[in-house]
Amino acid sequence: MAYLDNAATTRVCDEAARAAVEMMQSCYGNPSSLHRLGAASARRLAEAREAVAQLLGCQPECVYFTSGGSESNNLAILGAAQAKKRRADEIVTTTAEHSSVSMAVKHLEDQGWKVTRIHPGRDGNLDPYAVADAVNERTALVTMMVVNNETGALFPVEEAAALIRQKNPDTLIHWDGVQAFGKLPLKAARMEVDLLSVSGHKIQGPKGSGALYVRRGVRVAPVVYGGGQERGLRSGTEALPALVAMGAAAARLQGRLPALWQRTAGLRDSLRQRLEQLPQVQLNSPENASPYILNFSVPGYRSENMLHFLESRGVFVSSGSACSKGATSPVLTSMGLPAALVDSALRVSFIYDTQPEELDQLMDALKEGIATVAHR
Amino acid sequence: MAYLDNAATTRVCDEAARAAVEMMQSCYGNPSSLHRLGAASARRLAEAREAVAQLLGCQPECVYFTSGGSESNNLAILGAAQAKKRRADEIVTTTAEHSSVSMAVKHLEDQGWKVTRIHPGRDGNLDPYAVADAVNERTALVTMMVVNNETGALFPVEEAAALIRQKNPDTLIHWDGVQAFGKLPLKAARMEVDLLSVSGHKIQGPKGSGALYVRRGVRVAPVVYGGGQERGLRSGTEALPALVAMGAAAARLQGRLPALWQRTAGLRDSLRQRLEQLPQVQLNSPENASPYILNFSVPGYRSENMLHFLESRGVFVSSGSACSKGATSPVLTSMGLPAALVDSALRVSFIYDTQPEELDQLMDALKEGIATVAHR
Repeated sequence: MAYLDNAATTRVCDEAARAAVEMMQSCYGNPSSLHRLGAASARRLAEAREAVAQLLGCQPECVYFTSGGSESNNLAILGAAQAKKRRADEIVTTTAEHSSVSMAVKHLEDQGWKVTRIHPGRDGNLDPYAVADAVNERTALVTMMVVNNETGALFPVEEAAALIRQKNPDTLIHWDGVQAFGKLPLKAARMEVDLLSVSGHKIQGPKGSGALYVRRGVRVAPVVYGGGQERGLRSGTEALPALVAMGAAAARLQGRLPALWQRTAGLRDSLRQRLEQLPQVQLNSPENASPYILNFSVPGYRSENMLHFLESRGVFVSSGSACSKGATSPVLTSMGLPAALVDSALRVSFIYDTQPEELDQLMDALKEGIATVAHR
Repeated sequence: MAYLDNAATTRVCDEAARAAVEMMQSCYGNPSSLHRLGAASARRLAEAREAVAQLLGCQPECVYFTSGGSESNNLAILGAAQAKKRRADEIVTTTAEHSSVSMAVKHLEDQGWKVTRIHPGRDGNLDPYAVADAVNERTALVTMMVVNNETGALFPVEEAAALIRQKNPDTLIHWDGVQAFGKLPLKAARMEVDLLSVSGHKIQGPKGSGALYVRRGVRVAPVVYGGGQERGLRSGTEALPALVAMGAAAARLQGRLPALWQRTAGLRDSLRQRLEQLPQVQLNSPENASPYILNFSVPGYRSENMLHFLESRGVFVSSGSACSKGATSPVLTSMGLPAALVDSALRVSFIYDTQPEELDQLMDALKEGIATVAHR
């Protein structure tokens, strides 16, 4: 089997699974309980927060745990809008965002916010000047992703942030870092970012874990009210098994990101080369993209048909993002790709232990698919 | 060790822990993925939904998974207010609610909603007529709990609902069922309830799992926007390990609730009797309360001091609810109990496998504490 759908979700690593079991059956106190079983859980949560903070490049006090990337994005966007609404009423974003960003922004638009959406270019890349040009004195928030979830394109978040700060230092800057966290080395505390969303299940942690980095001094309103956990920003008994497991998955990556990036780039480059040799294939990912994601099209072969053929050969890939569940990719469409490429796009995505043999299996299955799957 | 803080959280049962591990490491596809690994995860999620629905007494289509009881309560309250705000602007609740209800309601009050809060009586019980009397043609929502989390008092939710329907059939009725679910047999589909919140970690499932029952035809607005999971009501990749584990914990209780209730009532009654024999102790829970929770005071001995003494003897109880983290109990205060009782209150809470020996250990430690802990 070749599991090459790691941008959708990953298999949980042994360290994280073990941590989850420990938190379910041994260290099961409620962190809010006053007795030592509660204190032990609180300590494990603090350790997890530290591991996540280290991977984010920030102080643990800036890490707020959530149930996942979607909640983090909603908390950042809705929370920032709520906090800023007295003085600002505009939002700048891109047309290539994950649905948890685009739908949260759309909800605000329905409530009267003015939204400007910047298109990436045909090559999948984004112009930081186009983003900054849209910012004015009424802009509450700019929200954009660091690594695009369909193409792997690295959006110029730092260049854009520097330009945004010049135009309006009060504008909050949010990055959806879900596909960047645990892959690209981040230094949140030293970057011009106010809010940064990450997820656990893309880095071999469990689904149901996530975090939001909130820069010191930045205030956002909560989305869930209650017992005041996560210093009031996210109430509810903490999801200890998932969060401590996320911490274990993060700890495992400590100091290894550059080497893993390079290893994955080797796999990706070799796959790019082999795909380029197939005349039927067109690559959609920019060359300078994250190595963890490679998007390509086989015009004439509908994504879904090819996906199911590949899975019949034990190869698991995605058509667009898992979250859009078969709907036409908004990312590729907004890049201006023709329908023939959008309708036949496949996303291959890697993780730390992806093996070269899995790529061999993909190439064999793909060639067989091109030869046998009905097209047009 | 005697773990008697099960209303705060429970140890995860083996069936649930096994299910979580399976979802982390074997059946790890994203339910939104189009390939069969995704379909397998979606199937397991559907089975979990069915198990939770059976315990709730409703169709699986009415069960929406969340990250826990607090999120369920927020979704019910904020979502109902959002859905109703054009035609109504009042909310009725009680003074004895969990913070995830009271703080969500307070957030709405800050935004201009009119809130009426009904006090329970000195015995911990609530008058259903008092609740219904507060309802008028502007009431969007009545939110109240089924089983009080500090005293175990069974609030007259069904009687109140019948009266509320008479006064305003458009008023939405929400029950916080967190301490009732998996304990009291529920028949949500046949009861006059529109929204019902439950949690996984109070029934030996993991922290980070919960659900909201939404009666067929009732509309609430989402709190988290995005990929449209949970039929649009709760976006974000589903927390498969926690949710399937919650399903396993629920399935394990199928058909056993009356017997477990009776077993626990036996333990509780025996503890009540033994506590009544201690002249220093006063019981705060009504006699007709849920057997899973017993609240009592030892006037003159501050809760926290006694709690720490008990834990030094391996006995784990709570002072008030874990979620209020040592703050003065709003529940006991609103019952009108004198400060001497509120400040010395302890909550003992049981679960399905609580052993009589644990009660022996509690009684021994309590007597020792009364004899040795500094008081006044």
